[in-house]
Amino acid sequence: LTNFTLELEGLHQALLAMSSLVEASIHSSIQALVERNARLCERVISDEPQTNRSELDIDARVIRILALHQPVAKDLRLLTAALKINTDLERIGDLAVSISQRVLSLLKSTPLPPPDEIPRMALLVEDMLSRSLDAFVRSDAELAGKVLPADREVDSLRDSVYDKLKEVMRQNPDLVSPAVDLMFIARSLERIGDHATNIAEDVIFLVRGVDVRHHSLDQRP
Amino acid sequence: LTNFTLELEGLHQALLAMSSLVEASIHSSIQALVERNARLCERVISDEPQTNRSELDIDARVIRILALHQPVAKDLRLLTAALKINTDLERIGDLAVSISQRVLSLLKSTPLPPPDEIPRMALLVEDMLSRSLDAFVRSDAELAGKVLPADREVDSLRDSVYDKLKEVMRQNPDLVSPAVDLMFIARSLERIGDHATNIAEDVIFLVRGVDVRHHSLDQRP
Repeated sequence: LTNFTLELEGLHQALLAMSSLVEASIHSSIQALVERNARLCERVISDEPQTNRSELDIDARVIRILALHQPVAKDLRLLTAALKINTDLERIGDLAVSISQRVLSLLKSTPLPPPDEIPRMALLVEDMLSRSLDAFVRSDAELAGKVLPADREVDSLRDSVYDKLKEVMRQNPDLVSPAVDLMFIARSLERIGDHATNIAEDVIFLVRGVDVRHHSLDQRP
Repeated sequence: LTNFTLELEGLHQALLAMSSLVEASIHSSIQALVERNARLCERVISDEPQTNRSELDIDARVIRILALHQPVAKDLRLLTAALKINTDLERIGDLAVSISQRVLSLLKSTPLPPPDEIPRMALLVEDMLSRSLDAFVRSDAELAGKVLPADREVDSLRDSVYDKLKEVMRQNPDLVSPAVDLMFIARSLERIGDHATNIAEDVIFLVRGVDVRHHSLDQRP
């Protein structure tokens, strides 16, 4: 194994570890919602600095590999994709923190059970995230492609959550505050799905998209 | 001027042009809100493909410069920062589109005047965005630092919008739907402020942060 291969392997492992961390944060924040568990929320919030450190570490790895090995062609695209995926993962971590903060706010108001769609959205986006990272590490565009249809399902569940919660607010003004919290939780889950979709699209572009990008270069005036 | 300098200059111009485009989209979407103007919304929505093309073009420029010139040290960090800023700008464009879609939805329900804080948030985030891009192009960390305090002001305006709109929903169930639209518009503006903050932080890191990042590399096990 060359040094370059080893460093790339280290980068993959670091991205997978960060992905597992943010996946666990999504999972815990929704468990906290369902169980009305403040301690779990605080754990998610206190894990955030670790995600931020991972982001800095991964950026530093990419910059070091670029500087030392000056890769070209697919290796270069792989590294720029890693930078983008890193940003998506950090943002997913932030969204899990937002969910936990909303759960803490929910615990202070009249109890309102979350619509069933919310835990379903969480399962879907966790799965999208884990498959898109697998696809990246294996440079597997076909696997990445299988992530994309789930995004529409997530959007449709979110619409259904919004409709239900608007009706709750119309019927019961006392529930406006918790219903708003739940709407923002659904919104955060949907955004996590968008970031997982970004990652999957980056993988597809990385593996298959050379000609497309080259074409757009040729057309530049 | 070397080829490298010329290509970097082209990259700066492309980022500035993209930034102007998304700034105009923010401005139009809020003007559309205030004037209840559906045509303006449709223009913002139809401008989105141009933003997406700019994003691809800028990524391609960065990858080409990396491949042809294999820069190191600050030049390399400048290029990885450009990739991140590009992602932020594309996302800001998406958020302007979201605002316009919410305005179109608002035009279908009982009229509810937007809280004054919303146009103020828009002016603030447009200014943050324009200054953070200037700071990037001039590699000016001090200017970038001046962007950061505005983010808190934006967050506080958003909180005030949320409070007002929750009260509206409690008082008048007929206004739940437009109030929700306005909440999401405030949320989008706040996120635009976050992205402008990201850009400013990238500039500070780019100019001043070498030692910090180097330090974190040394500490890696």
